[in-house]
Amino acid sequence: MTETPLRTFMALALEMAKQDKNEVPVGALMVQGGTMIALRHNEVMQRQDPTAHAEMLVIRDALRILGQMYLTDCTLYVTLEPCPLCAAACAAVRLKHVVFGAYDPKSGGLIHGPRVLDHTHHKPLITGGVMETESQTLLTQFFAGQR
Amino acid sequence: MTETPLRTFMALALEMAKQDKNEVPVGALMVQGGTMIALRHNEVMQRQDPTAHAEMLVIRDALRILGQMYLTDCTLYVTLEPCPLCAAACAAVRLKHVVFGAYDPKSGGLIHGPRVLDHTHHKPLITGGVMETESQTLLTQFFAGQR
Repeated sequence: MTETPLRTFMALALEMAKQDKNEVPVGALMVQGGTMIALRHNEVMQRQDPTAHAEMLVIRDALRILGQMYLTDCTLYVTLEPCPLCAAACAAVRLKHVVFGAYDPKSGGLIHGPRVLDHTHHKPLITGGVMETESQTLLTQFFAGQR
Repeated sequence: MTETPLRTFMALALEMAKQDKNEVPVGALMVQGGTMIALRHNEVMQRQDPTAHAEMLVIRDALRILGQMYLTDCTLYVTLEPCPLCAAACAAVRLKHVVFGAYDPKSGGLIHGPRVLDHTHHKPLITGGVMETESQTLLTQFFAGQR
């Protein structure tokens, strides 16, 4: 895969991340065969549910839309490295590929912290750092505004 | 807390685990102030969603029923050690206490595998092995029947 489609989809995820000013700005989308099938931002505040991360929502959307139990031919794009919850969900639904933007040394669970995929049977491909600066800047601005 | 209420609630979770013969028999319930507020079994096959574990469902039920963002005064009972996904969810909603039945050295994420809580800010109390034999026997019988 060339760099271009990765950036194209990540740019869409970034736009989605900006849609709700009350939520930590993270956006995610699911792609199957070059086509976007689901797009979400965090809904933690809206739903009052700390597990309503963009990745969890887009994974459940994709399962329902495709009517299949596993997402073995799908790629998840997300603007921030998934946390342990979302990393475990990526393995559970057997994603082909996870592409993320900013690294999250503090709360990430994919390549930081518990490194959940070191312990799962299924291990999606991982590509990190796509539009990293843009994703990180968006998060930094959000948290600066909250102080 | 004495042993009695732990076994009483775990016995209910075990009964719930047996309700759907198509699902891996795991049951979970949420307790607040000595009162059960939600009760679920796995719904992975029913929903065709590998993330629809009993714990995830009972956590989302409890958030909705209580209308609060965190479950800091709640105890989760589950018949099997939570996997990494559910262990991370337990931390995310800030559960007070997680009580489980059988240990899961292969796929557990609470005290086995990635030990997710070693990396989270919030760390619920953990009590394992309550009605362990009954929980393990139920699982062993299910998987023996699938061969």
